[in-house]
Amino acid sequence: MSDVLTSRARLRELFSPASIALVGASDTSGWARNVYQSLRAGGFDGRFVPVHPRHPTAFGIPTRPSLRDLREPADLAFVLVPTHAVEDVIHDAAAAGIRNMIVLAAGFGDHGDAGRLLERRLVETATGHGITLLGPNGLGFINAPARVAPYGLVLSPPLTAGPVGVVLQSGALASAVLSFARGHGIGFSLLVSMGNEAMVTTADVIDYLVEDDGTRVIALFLEEIRHAARFAGLARRAQAAGKPIVALKVGRSPAGQRTALAHTGAVAGDVAVVDAALRQLGVIRVRGLEELLVTAGLLGQAPPLRGRRMGVVTASGGACDIIADRASEEGIELPDFGPGTVAALERVLPSFASPQNPVDVTGVGLASQQTGATRPIVDALAAVVQDPNVDFVLTLGIVVPGTPPPEPAGLERRLDDQAAIMASSPVPVVAASTACHDLTDYARKVLQARGLHLLAGLDLGLTAIGHALRWEERRARRRAASTSPSPPAGEVASQGRRGSEGRWPAGVWPETAGRRLLAVARVPMVAAELACSADEAVAAASRVGYPVALRVSAAGLAHRSDAGGVALGLASPTAVRRAYPRVRAAAGGPEAEVDVEGVLVSPMRSGGVELLAGVTVDATFGPVLAVGLGGIWVEALHDVALRVLPIEEADARDMLGELRAAPLLRGARGGTPVDLDRVADVLLGLAGAAALVGPSLQALEVNPLWCSGDRVEGLDVLVVTGSREG
Amino acid sequence: MSDVLTSRARLRELFSPASIALVGASDTSGWARNVYQSLRAGGFDGRFVPVHPRHPTAFGIPTRPSLRDLREPADLAFVLVPTHAVEDVIHDAAAAGIRNMIVLAAGFGDHGDAGRLLERRLVETATGHGITLLGPNGLGFINAPARVAPYGLVLSPPLTAGPVGVVLQSGALASAVLSFARGHGIGFSLLVSMGNEAMVTTADVIDYLVEDDGTRVIALFLEEIRHAARFAGLARRAQAAGKPIVALKVGRSPAGQRTALAHTGAVAGDVAVVDAALRQLGVIRVRGLEELLVTAGLLGQAPPLRGRRMGVVTASGGACDIIADRASEEGIELPDFGPGTVAALERVLPSFASPQNPVDVTGVGLASQQTGATRPIVDALAAVVQDPNVDFVLTLGIVVPGTPPPEPAGLERRLDDQAAIMASSPVPVVAASTACHDLTDYARKVLQARGLHLLAGLDLGLTAIGHALRWEERRARRRAASTSPSPPAGEVASQGRRGSEGRWPAGVWPETAGRRLLAVARVPMVAAELACSADEAVAAASRVGYPVALRVSAAGLAHRSDAGGVALGLASPTAVRRAYPRVRAAAGGPEAEVDVEGVLVSPMRSGGVELLAGVTVDATFGPVLAVGLGGIWVEALHDVALRVLPIEEADARDMLGELRAAPLLRGARGGTPVDLDRVADVLLGLAGAAALVGPSLQALEVNPLWCSGDRVEGLDVLVVTGSREG
Repeated sequence: MSDVLTSRARLRELFSPASIALVGASDTSGWARNVYQSLRAGGFDGRFVPVHPRHPTAFGIPTRPSLRDLREPADLAFVLVPTHAVEDVIHDAAAAGIRNMIVLAAGFGDHGDAGRLLERRLVETATGHGITLLGPNGLGFINAPARVAPYGLVLSPPLTAGPVGVVLQSGALASAVLSFARGHGIGFSLLVSMGNEAMVTTADVIDYLVEDDGTRVIALFLEEIRHAARFAGLARRAQAAGKPIVALKVGRSPAGQRTALAHTGAVAGDVAVVDAALRQLGVIRVRGLEELLVTAGLLGQAPPLRGRRMGVVTASGGACDIIADRASEEGIELPDFGPGTVAALERVLPSFASPQNPVDVTGVGLASQQTGATRPIVDALAAVVQDPNVDFVLTLGIVVPGTPPPEPAGLERRLDDQAAIMASSPVPVVAASTACHDLTDYARKVLQARGLHLLAGLDLGLTAIGHALRWEERRARRRAASTSPSPPAGEVASQGRRGSEGRWPAGVWPETAGRRLLAVARVPMVAAELACSADEAVAAASRVGYPVALRVSAAGLAHRSDAGGVALGLASPTAVRRAYPRVRAAAGGPEAEVDVEGVLVSPMRSGGVELLAGVTVDATFGPVLAVGLGGIWVEALHDVALRVLPIEEADARDMLGELRAAPLLRGARGGTPVDLDRVADVLLGLAGAAALVGPSLQALEVNPLWCSGDRVEGLDVLVVTGSREG
Repeated sequence: MSDVLTSRARLRELFSPASIALVGASDTSGWARNVYQSLRAGGFDGRFVPVHPRHPTAFGIPTRPSLRDLREPADLAFVLVPTHAVEDVIHDAAAAGIRNMIVLAAGFGDHGDAGRLLERRLVETATGHGITLLGPNGLGFINAPARVAPYGLVLSPPLTAGPVGVVLQSGALASAVLSFARGHGIGFSLLVSMGNEAMVTTADVIDYLVEDDGTRVIALFLEEIRHAARFAGLARRAQAAGKPIVALKVGRSPAGQRTALAHTGAVAGDVAVVDAALRQLGVIRVRGLEELLVTAGLLGQAPPLRGRRMGVVTASGGACDIIADRASEEGIELPDFGPGTVAALERVLPSFASPQNPVDVTGVGLASQQTGATRPIVDALAAVVQDPNVDFVLTLGIVVPGTPPPEPAGLERRLDDQAAIMASSPVPVVAASTACHDLTDYARKVLQARGLHLLAGLDLGLTAIGHALRWEERRARRRAASTSPSPPAGEVASQGRRGSEGRWPAGVWPETAGRRLLAVARVPMVAAELACSADEAVAAASRVGYPVALRVSAAGLAHRSDAGGVALGLASPTAVRRAYPRVRAAAGGPEAEVDVEGVLVSPMRSGGVELLAGVTVDATFGPVLAVGLGGIWVEALHDVALRVLPIEEADARDMLGELRAAPLLRGARGGTPVDLDRVADVLLGLAGAAALVGPSLQALEVNPLWCSGDRVEGLDVLVVTGSREG
């Protein structure tokens, strides 16, 4: 039922009311005043009914004592009553035929067990009545195109309609978001304060925005990713639809205790998992509100940028310097202009200006900026957009004063001409201001009249351009990759379940069980023979070849090496015979809770490179594959590549390339290059093994994974599971 | 003479004219209009005389045909005439008794050899007349406190006076700088567009600002650091005076060809040298104009921040999240509040708000923000500033609407109370807005009336706080360190010069000469005997002990190893005898231009860690010491620590700590920790050796520097010098 209530159709109804009842409306309530003022600021021209049991009027408008007293149902009830009174209002609303509701009160799921109980009842009641409920503990929404802004903060007009859909998990940020957006001419299709998401969730609103024709880009402020699988599906759909998602994701979820069992978990960390997950999903991750909005504004308002070669037109050498530095950091190229462009620039630039990319038309351009009398900044743009070597153009020439100049005709003619050049340009043209400052009402007006959008300063602007380029590239790669075979996890999993292994053990597995799992998943492991006596160990050693390693195989023994359960580099039968009892005993005496199977005897490996690869389970995203070089690379440099599972073949290769230690794998120290395809196969195998174990998996780690040229072998494996559900 | 003309006293005169003549003033000149409008916008109330040979009036004011026709000398002539006419104007100015001049025209040092010649003559003429000349190719200056703004761009009033001195090597950026500063209530003591720095240099203006009482912080836009030694001295003086320098340094100087000779040079790179130099000098390096100004604004307008423990008061959970993330990135702590603070907060916060750091007073605070009716945001601030665990407080509670509210009394009372709490707080209180947006005139007025300064959004604000904290810490460290002994370079140098070495060779030194240099500088090198025949080599090998290395020692041979001039790991007399002729021949036959001395025989070293240490010469900063681990660390990870010489003892230890590979030196892989004091001594020794060679040094490199526990030995040394001036 609640799925129906949060469907796209129902959300469209929720966000587009023609009549609104404000429950708890009085002149003395700050919240009520805010909502009323916001509706006015947004230009709401529908029916507005204040509801209050005692005050006869609010804001000069006669009130109704209760929703039950409405003459006709309102499309939306905005409910300001205290926590304990909300439930009664829902019944009133239902009786009045109201289908949509915003609840502002806190003290529900945000406030302990009692609050959570209250919230569950709230949802049940609303669901029972077929009411779609936004909140509680949310501030409302702003539908700028429909001019409906029932919001609990004071909003300053105008609310600019535009292509950016905004979802906030902290409604109080709306003021800052709206001020910044207004200052930079960034328009919204919808802004929603999610509150506790008791019924309508962030995922529901994203789903709505992905389908909403008025939305070209989705900007998120996320404290938490609540429905990771659905979120992932939506992100993929948004990417396929060409709608970028930009996210400011804050905070860290508490580190899961169980991940501490295995080394991989300790270094991976939840923040890194969120990073990896969002990157995998093509979500653009930003670090501040300004970056969120400038990036969304660019993606929503400029044509797609499909190449890294940038032509630049400025009237300041200093700006050229800043652009060159930031472009280099973002991997944006500044190609030389073709001879035709150089010739054209020479005709329009002052003699002491240089017709190079980035172009500085010099102060002559500046001195005449406002009058438009001389026009090198315009003529240079006209020349540069025709250059065959550039994929897009950045201009700093769209300069508008804060107030109308005494004779605006020159300025307006210049802007008209610049807009015309941009509109007919064979490549996208992006305009920016030098620093981040708000547009005045006048500046916004003359720009919007010409469809011109200014990026908010060079620093944020080039950051946004970098994001946009990476997003387009990732999307193109993803499209190309979609023809590659799907991951083998499913195949392995079904094979495993049908196999002879039966149920998997729980807790820390004995290594023999881990090795059986990896065999099914086709992860190559070093040869190993199980010995149950010193004699058997010596015999096994002679078969696998000296020097050998002994490892105790026992269920329940996580830190085997620390406990002395491993002996390495044993070069003779005597050494093996001497080591056996010590290794065997490390698992504990008869009173220990571990279940000793015996001792594994393996040949030693030397030379090559030792990796560490495994799967941990993130509380939000589930199984996460990690790979890194062991030792200092992981411990001190946190040099680990991560992917949320499932992955595709290309992901596994990409992971190895991401490592800072990648040059070592490629033979940087004069060693033989490691066969990266084999290592990638092992990573895919580990992903398959994780799928095979299923939801009970807590950790799976091959450490070390020994790589020497085309030989790739796991030397040790640790598997930990939770319950016997696998 | 020109030193006198650019003295602080003369610059004070230049920047504080009571009368200004504008040469080339006409209603049709865009530049003239700009300067005139800027003077008006700045509120100039002195005498203004337009000068033009043909137009009888400009801007409605009667002109004089030439400076010679002035009735009394002007304090400053702003010269707009074309390049070729400037020199005549200087003579006119001198005849009129004018002592200060701004020249706007380009086409001098910025325009080829002819321009450079013209510029030299310009300076000679001005110097001859005792005229201080700013420019050419500069836009002027803005002295906001004195209300004098002769500037070639249109400036919007008001120009806010304040503690920030700004020096721009790109005058066109002034518009962006001023707009951003005005939008954020950042006031200037002086802003100067340097132009070509033909006479008055950036260093001169910094020198002036360091002594200027109205300046508390210096903000620089630098394309180039022209007088590195003087700049360094000024930076140290500024630090000692407690005036931070914040710099946006852009661009790269062309990589010196000579550094390509040695490996260190190739990896160090000029940009890294600038970074290192500025960090050593305590200059705060920023990456954008906004960061430049927000950082300068904080340092100029807030009390010094002397501890990393931050208390936070907000009315938004989302803002708390953003703050926590950014604080963590900046290394700022959010300590738990003491029990007294918690109790005080519990009294003033709504029941569902949590009295934790960072404090979110929740929407109740927001809903009443404008009226000031309920005051949790004020009361929470009052509680938090008293907390014993915090070193400073960040508040987001200074919220001001863009326009006056209908009843401003509540707002004003709240701001008064907040200002009073901040003024009497035992710890510094910093206020910020959530996002970066411009203050309206109204907001700026009510804030300035109360001495309140708002950081421009959380992202920039916390970046600025991080800079301020690091600057105070560095200053405190530098003060503590100033009692430590001075570097031994001088001592070593004098010893060397008095020694028996005499003049140093030029070009690529034979290794024997390099070893003699290092012996004087007390850098330990592996034992080595020079052999001039295979027999001598075998004899030497038996003395130093097998296995041995052979290295040809020859002047002029830079890439000895590539040429086959090195043989490693020779374990027997036969191997030595066989290798000798090959190694010896690698230097070339009799026709080669190298001067072969013989072959050095050394014992091999194994195990331990191999570093690479050396000195390269940067075009701007001179000798630069570099140290890193060899191999992948340098090649792929660019993991090199740099210091401009001279250095102090603490620097050498700090360099080793900066390396990402530092854990390896500390024995991370189970190895014996390297004796870092010994390595630091070697670094100091290399610095001394560089001083010993003097200005002819081009490269000095010990590679590898072998470290095993407390044994530290150079295994190979390369020295390259330019001419025989050393």
